[in-house]
Amino acid sequence: MVKVSVIGATGYAGAELLSILIRHPQAQIAHITSESHTGKKISELYPHLRGLCYLTLESLADIESIGADSDFIFIALPHGHAMDAGLKLDKLPVRIIDLGADYRFSDTDVYEAWYKVPHKHKDAHRVYGLAEIYRNQIRDAKIIGNAGCFTTALVKHHLVDANSIIVDAASGVSGAGRGLKLGNHFAELYDNFKAYNVAHHRHTPEIEQALKDLGGEEIIINFTPHLVPMSRGILATCYATLKENVSGEMVDATFHKMYGGEKFIRLLGRDAYPETKFVRGSNYCDLGWHIDERTHRVIILSAIDNLVKGAAGQAVQNFNIAAGFYESIALDVVPFYP
Amino acid sequence: MVKVSVIGATGYAGAELLSILIRHPQAQIAHITSESHTGKKISELYPHLRGLCYLTLESLADIESIGADSDFIFIALPHGHAMDAGLKLDKLPVRIIDLGADYRFSDTDVYEAWYKVPHKHKDAHRVYGLAEIYRNQIRDAKIIGNAGCFTTALVKHHLVDANSIIVDAASGVSGAGRGLKLGNHFAELYDNFKAYNVAHHRHTPEIEQALKDLGGEEIIINFTPHLVPMSRGILATCYATLKENVSGEMVDATFHKMYGGEKFIRLLGRDAYPETKFVRGSNYCDLGWHIDERTHRVIILSAIDNLVKGAAGQAVQNFNIAAGFYESIALDVVPFYP
Amino acid sequence: MVKVSVIGATGYAGAELLSILIRHPQAQIAHITSESHTGKKISELYPHLRGLCYLTLESLADIESIGADSDFIFIALPHGHAMDAGLKLDKLPVRIIDLGADYRFSDTDVYEAWYKVPHKHKDAHRVYGLAEIYRNQIRDAKIIGNAGCFTTALVKHHLVDANSIIVDAASGVSGAGRGLKLGNHFAELYDNFKAYNVAHHRHTPEIEQALKDLGGEEIIINFTPHLVPMSRGILATCYATLKENVSGEMVDATFHKMYGGEKFIRLLGRDAYPETKFVRGSNYCDLGWHIDERTHRVIILSAIDNLVKGAAGQAVQNFNIAAGFYESIALDVVPFYP
Amino acid sequence: MVKVSVIGATGYAGAELLSILIRHPQAQIAHITSESHTGKKISELYPHLRGLCYLTLESLADIESIGADSDFIFIALPHGHAMDAGLKLDKLPVRIIDLGADYRFSDTDVYEAWYKVPHKHKDAHRVYGLAEIYRNQIRDAKIIGNAGCFTTALVKHHLVDANSIIVDAASGVSGAGRGLKLGNHFAELYDNFKAYNVAHHRHTPEIEQALKDLGGEEIIINFTPHLVPMSRGILATCYATLKENVSGEMVDATFHKMYGGEKFIRLLGRDAYPETKFVRGSNYCDLGWHIDERTHRVIILSAIDNLVKGAAGQAVQNFNIAAGFYESIALDVVPFYP
Repeated sequence: MVKVSVIGATGYAGAELLSILIRHPQAQIAHITSESHTGKKISELYPHLRGLCYLTLESLADIESIGADSDFIFIALPHGHAMDAGLKLDKLPVRIIDLGADYRFSDTDVYEAWYKVPHKHKDAHRVYGLAEIYRNQIRDAKIIGNAGCFTTALVKHHLVDANSIIVDAASGVSGAGRGLKLGNHFAELYDNFKAYNVAHHRHTPEIEQALKDLGGEEIIINFTPHLVPMSRGILATCYATLKENVSGEMVDATFHKMYGGEKFIRLLGRDAYPETKFVRGSNYCDLGWHIDERTHRVIILSAIDNLVKGAAGQAVQNFNIAAGFYESIALDVVPFYP
Repeated sequence: MVKVSVIGATGYAGAELLSILIRHPQAQIAHITSESHTGKKISELYPHLRGLCYLTLESLADIESIGADSDFIFIALPHGHAMDAGLKLDKLPVRIIDLGADYRFSDTDVYEAWYKVPHKHKDAHRVYGLAEIYRNQIRDAKIIGNAGCFTTALVKHHLVDANSIIVDAASGVSGAGRGLKLGNHFAELYDNFKAYNVAHHRHTPEIEQALKDLGGEEIIINFTPHLVPMSRGILATCYATLKENVSGEMVDATFHKMYGGEKFIRLLGRDAYPETKFVRGSNYCDLGWHIDERTHRVIILSAIDNLVKGAAGQAVQNFNIAAGFYESIALDVVPFYP
Repeated sequence: MVKVSVIGATGYAGAELLSILIRHPQAQIAHITSESHTGKKISELYPHLRGLCYLTLESLADIESIGADSDFIFIALPHGHAMDAGLKLDKLPVRIIDLGADYRFSDTDVYEAWYKVPHKHKDAHRVYGLAEIYRNQIRDAKIIGNAGCFTTALVKHHLVDANSIIVDAASGVSGAGRGLKLGNHFAELYDNFKAYNVAHHRHTPEIEQALKDLGGEEIIINFTPHLVPMSRGILATCYATLKENVSGEMVDATFHKMYGGEKFIRLLGRDAYPETKFVRGSNYCDLGWHIDERTHRVIILSAIDNLVKGAAGQAVQNFNIAAGFYESIALDVVPFYP
Repeated sequence: MVKVSVIGATGYAGAELLSILIRHPQAQIAHITSESHTGKKISELYPHLRGLCYLTLESLADIESIGADSDFIFIALPHGHAMDAGLKLDKLPVRIIDLGADYRFSDTDVYEAWYKVPHKHKDAHRVYGLAEIYRNQIRDAKIIGNAGCFTTALVKHHLVDANSIIVDAASGVSGAGRGLKLGNHFAELYDNFKAYNVAHHRHTPEIEQALKDLGGEEIIINFTPHLVPMSRGILATCYATLKENVSGEMVDATFHKMYGGEKFIRLLGRDAYPETKFVRGSNYCDLGWHIDERTHRVIILSAIDNLVKGAAGQAVQNFNIAAGFYESIALDVVPFYP
């Protein structure tokens, strides 16, 4: 058994992580923390865990001793806070999987420009935790900067004009966290649809970083998130102009070559329509694509569960890789339907 | 009092039309029809109308006598059926407002190519019923082809590359009608988000027609609709690349010049976020726009209620214009919130 | 024109009240207040009111001058606060319609026992604002204590065992207000159903008061509210054991005698099923009832919109009565469907 | 490995059953049937099963050969059809778990009176499949008539007046099945709440049968179901008058004695509020209860997931008992939250 701890266990991503780890046959949850609920049982906060998890929330003030008693630490804190924890754990053998943004960027200048906070841990031995693309580096990185949920929904574009990419995405409200905001109030959100953070969403630069790592050239994209009156799920609708002479068959072949062997990517094929409902609760990313002959654009549709493949499931997938386990342990669940 | 009749009164658009006409002080509803419910009271089908509307549904088999007894006829039938009615009413003085697609195209070849049915009434004296743009022609047209709901959400683009336009839209399920389909089942639709008809949605050519009429040049766009787990509302997110030297201020000025005097268009301004919730139940179209300096694109957000500004409200606005009434009669309602 | 002001205009009931008053042809909104948003335009807080209401929120610190400049004042404050306002306005000719609980009880001891605060205005000239029952007293009362939303959904029981009454009710979340609570978060409320305040809900004693006023004997009931994942609506399912020899026809006759002439009560009849959807946005109370021969119980179903008949609509109905207007002015709207 | 087959696999209960059986380490799914989709792959109908289940739907015309190739058969057909299957399988060693009503009643006259069809298999060796109460009989019954979802939500009442029981229940729409009905349309159901089948719901007699088996006396109850705009979950609010001298402590003790050792019943305790959200996706039944001193009634709240504890989970629990497995295999999942 590998001992794991969760720092910041009481947000939605933290709770999802506990759900997955509870059913992980080779992980033992050692410590869980929450600053606002220190001393409470997790099952008081999350009644669905009654009878399933008996742990009491600790404070991360003791993070060094938690680190000394853990093989892996998952951090589910707002950006800016994981760096502090990472620094304190730097000398210990414990490895870190950060669900936030602090360790996602190879160029910390980009982080500082978009997140408006100084980076305190620039020399961390880290890797971007998008398993399908950076699997080999994940195996022995000290810190794994789990990919942002929107990035995960993206795909490699090799056959398209670099600067023609538009990502139009829609997310369920659990992506906005459990915090109390008027926009999350049921009466405000139901029967409503809106965009937010147009041209300024912080997942933009990590999508660009991954695209550059894949394609070798600088890429600037438009990324527009929308809020859907639902709990879970992200659907990304990605537009790109195909280079001349690129055919639908070449697009098909690229997808199958790149993702055909991936367990958690289900290629639904050309002209297919992924729906967020059909990946809900699972670590799957469902992909479909369409060619518009009139405009010579490819439109790629990608569906994930933001709390699983977009957060906790991705984190456990990275954990499985890093710990040397079979990659899908505890993640081979049937999507929750209807 | 002007006598009006509604052909096909039992779909969602028909029901919304009745709701508006019931409160219209200068319209008297003379006849309503339904082929599947002939002989029933409308309040049996729509219990919310109990005590408010006592009419009984007739058959459109009698459409000539209905036409002879009406000043205006609203048609809310599936495409392909309004043409038959239009032909039969051609010799009568009654005027027609069609909520469907049959009379939307000046070029009936385009209609036939996208709708896959022959057009039977090519010489109809008709106009495209988008009031803000075709107001003058609406005043005395025999037939008004009410604008499709998605088109309505569009705006004139003068300062952008003609072939850079992408319209990414999301609609509530009432836009799919009252028919029984698995995709409309609550358990299937809730907590779900998906695209449909990528590159093939039939509102594409009428958007292109309106853009051509406005800008004078052929325009080919990408239009991608999505289905949102909500009842009413359309939000269109429109992307276009600005021509060089076009500034944000020039964009602002264009919107104010074009729509500043329109009662039913509320310009929220640059960097604003329209939400479908805030136009629900009303004839408003709320507009906001954003300039992305990095990609030199403008992103325009436009929110309407698909059943009102996108269907029944637009129809009554056209009716008011055509009948010579003040344009906002029966339409000056407060949006329904929360 | 009658000048009206709204104290506490920024909650859901306050916003609904503004929506109704905006369309009231004989009311002019003079002042609106909010302590947390003093100085802001109401349309900033409620974007659906853009272009429809240009008022700026004031503080109720100036309530005497607001009172001097108003014919009627609506108070939409949490319980305990209307009394302070009522005392300050006691000497002015302005009349008060309180949407809260402070003036609902003829016996202020009952108020104090259930609300746990001392009553400061015991000698107020007040009446319980349930128009269908207390219409005559409403005409000239100084203060009208608007009926609680659940009470409104109740009906007179004459033919039943006094102590057999159970009221099982379910309400949309707008009844819980616009405040930020975890239970109102979309992700928590959707796909969830729960009871709350079993045996302790504060609307219990006013239901008992109304039943006693109607029937002449002390009645103790069970009242259990539930929270439904929807925005608006209350359905009350009321159980009572019929006295021996009481037949279904006698029940029918009682309902028709009592409510047959009421504009806002729609008697759907025996074996009918009211649905909250069909009264949404309107001042209607839809009633249906069932006789269970096996248990000799009557089951009464009653549907209202909690924000309209249960709050703002009821208040305007009382206002119309008190001001001598036709009772349904500004309230004769078509329910909002679907 | 035990070979199991599912007759009628394409309804919501059938699909849930597949989800559970897929993760059951000792069950191998041999055959699945559907009359309307014979020959199709299950993953075409249920895209969430892509990559997880490769079976093709067969016809139940071959039920004898399916029966010969199975150790257990689950039947998820509408009432009236399981009897036909049961008769055909009578001579084979295969055992049957019926999710419908055909085998729930020891007195088939009661079945015929409520379901209005003749019973064709009156001498079947059957047991009512409510595991917590009839566990011992389940072990070797040929046919297990799985308990109706509402019954499951009930509890033993020993301390109350036999004829004072009222069960007021609310269910998500998946309980109404996947069939297309107007009432299941998203636009009709959202923001709506209604009762149905007042005094006539067919789960009434099986609740009465279970209560009689437990308490030894004839009991007649009122049972009122409601439809909630959500997908899954049932909350039952049960009222009963306590006998004189019965105290809250006696109620508490009875619950703990009866259910304290049950793995799938979580006793939240007196004054607790179960919510359907916290059992969603799991086989748990959460119980809380309240004593109203004013009316001397006990109010019991009981939450289940209608598709799991109310259907497929209960069926697998019965299967585990009947097959001699540990009772919670494949059922020890974390509820799906949020």
